[in-house]
Amino acid sequence: MRRPTLAVVAQAAGVSLKTASRVLNGEPNVASATRERVQDAAASLGFRRNAVAADLARGGLSRLVGFITGDLANEFYSALASGIERELREHGLQLLTASSDEDPDREASLTGELIERRVGALIVTPAGADQSALRSEIAAGLPVVVVDRPAAGMDVDTVVIDNRGGTRSAVAHLLAHGHRRIGFVGDEPHLWTYQERSAEFLAAMAEAGVPDAQRLVRSGAHDAAAARGLALELLGAPEPPTAILAANNRATVGTLQALRDTPGGADVAVVGFDDFELADLLGITVVAYDAVEMGRRAAELAVARSADPDRTVEQVVLPTRVVTRGSGERPPR
Amino acid sequence: MRRPTLAVVAQAAGVSLKTASRVLNGEPNVASATRERVQDAAASLGFRRNAVAADLARGGLSRLVGFITGDLANEFYSALASGIERELREHGLQLLTASSDEDPDREASLTGELIERRVGALIVTPAGADQSALRSEIAAGLPVVVVDRPAAGMDVDTVVIDNRGGTRSAVAHLLAHGHRRIGFVGDEPHLWTYQERSAEFLAAMAEAGVPDAQRLVRSGAHDAAAARGLALELLGAPEPPTAILAANNRATVGTLQALRDTPGGADVAVVGFDDFELADLLGITVVAYDAVEMGRRAAELAVARSADPDRTVEQVVLPTRVVTRGSGERPPR
Repeated sequence: MRRPTLAVVAQAAGVSLKTASRVLNGEPNVASATRERVQDAAASLGFRRNAVAADLARGGLSRLVGFITGDLANEFYSALASGIERELREHGLQLLTASSDEDPDREASLTGELIERRVGALIVTPAGADQSALRSEIAAGLPVVVVDRPAAGMDVDTVVIDNRGGTRSAVAHLLAHGHRRIGFVGDEPHLWTYQERSAEFLAAMAEAGVPDAQRLVRSGAHDAAAARGLALELLGAPEPPTAILAANNRATVGTLQALRDTPGGADVAVVGFDDFELADLLGITVVAYDAVEMGRRAAELAVARSADPDRTVEQVVLPTRVVTRGSGERPPR
Repeated sequence: MRRPTLAVVAQAAGVSLKTASRVLNGEPNVASATRERVQDAAASLGFRRNAVAADLARGGLSRLVGFITGDLANEFYSALASGIERELREHGLQLLTASSDEDPDREASLTGELIERRVGALIVTPAGADQSALRSEIAAGLPVVVVDRPAAGMDVDTVVIDNRGGTRSAVAHLLAHGHRRIGFVGDEPHLWTYQERSAEFLAAMAEAGVPDAQRLVRSGAHDAAAARGLALELLGAPEPPTAILAANNRATVGTLQALRDTPGGADVAVVGFDDFELADLLGITVVAYDAVEMGRRAAELAVARSADPDRTVEQVVLPTRVVTRGSGERPPR
């Protein structure tokens, strides 16, 4: 960037550095002729004030809010981001999104980058268990909200969904349609959402008197290709499941691909956790919730925290519901 | 943010402001005892250097690259973003994404915000025809790359796909399967991609001797709901199309919904422009191209432009291909 400095603008306008600074930061009490001269000089020289420095000098917060997401290419995170963005706009704020790719190191480094660029608040879907980087930022007064997963051991505004309730409803739905051998295709085992959903799956199966449900639990479905492999593994077992609970949208896509590629696969019941746009066209029964609303609530909390750093910490849990579309209502073969 | 200033750190360490600054910016020639004292003071006070100011002081470029996208929630933009991100990481750079929501005013304001935060380069999918904001930034030396759509009248690095070639192949494919009454469901008419695709559609239809093809062209399918309405309108006409070219991924989803809700809709052939993850499962024939590669190339150009501001401007056009999956191969009823 070959930008003129403020000093160059001041010199061109024939005013002091201080006067040039006052004009360009919109401060009052400058003669209008002088103001015009500085503005003309700045425009013709292509000067752009340093907004970060100006914000800081005025003690104001940045108009930018950072969102560190797990995976930009996942429809769930896109929906979250659009909900966050929608709410921020209501407050004249803008969203910057960065992806951690579910890597705790990258998350820490992005947190640092965004903070060094003085974002006014940070919304994070924590990738790892260690949120110590965030802890010191919160202590220093940065408004932080975590979304989709809690930050372990931290007293921070949080928006999650009712993962256990959603899982329980899905299992109950499949049990009610006569299934007992229900497979579970889940995300990476270090993710909190996986842990919640798989634990509740096993609890619900145990309560229903299904022994050895652990046998049909698979983890590692972070993308559709991995999920397809896991589902094929389940379907190829000696006593294959008659139904599969695909524990996130990636798992659902991979499971559907596996079923298409398996003889008799069309008879296997499927319930997917996370709704997705084409679930309706494909006739897939899902555990749905409002991901856009989830983002909106997170943004709302970030704004509230900025306005009042001392307000009570909120833990929001959004409800889920089973949406029946055919795939989850097939009886066992 | 209640952060200590550099002066507070310097005072706590008992050194001059200049020495504290040298230590915290990692400059050499400071006694190691002094260095330690400053670092300890900075750590205990929670000081964080201003990376923006430090970058500028060193005359270096920021490690952040901005991407202003049309719509975060669209799978096409997510794929672009993930391609950009992948390439940037190779160079130790990080991506910040912001959405213009296809609004030229918002795009201009985001451009300003990102530049004021000293991003090292900017990648943009231009929402409007007026790119004058970008023009002055480029003149001032900011590396800018436009992707998906060109910036009218500007000599700037550009990555687009072969929209006309892709459209021509799609029309040829449907004509070869016997269709003559082919409908066209397209995006907002002000978008360059719409203009390219619709113009080529009409040209190809005219060359095939189909009169009055304009009658079956609809625009405004910016989201799936709008596309569904447009497709229903086409399907409800006295002489409905026997095939539909859905000119982007939103148009395809809406068209599929409309066909499901129309008696005999399953017989209508469909080719979609833009591949999408579930097209395979749904059996949808599409005009495909590599959106991740498109993003990767854009990032590559941004990095190259940063390294050499005087290099020749590149215009990259990526190829498309028709992927047949069933929906585009149905004969006319």
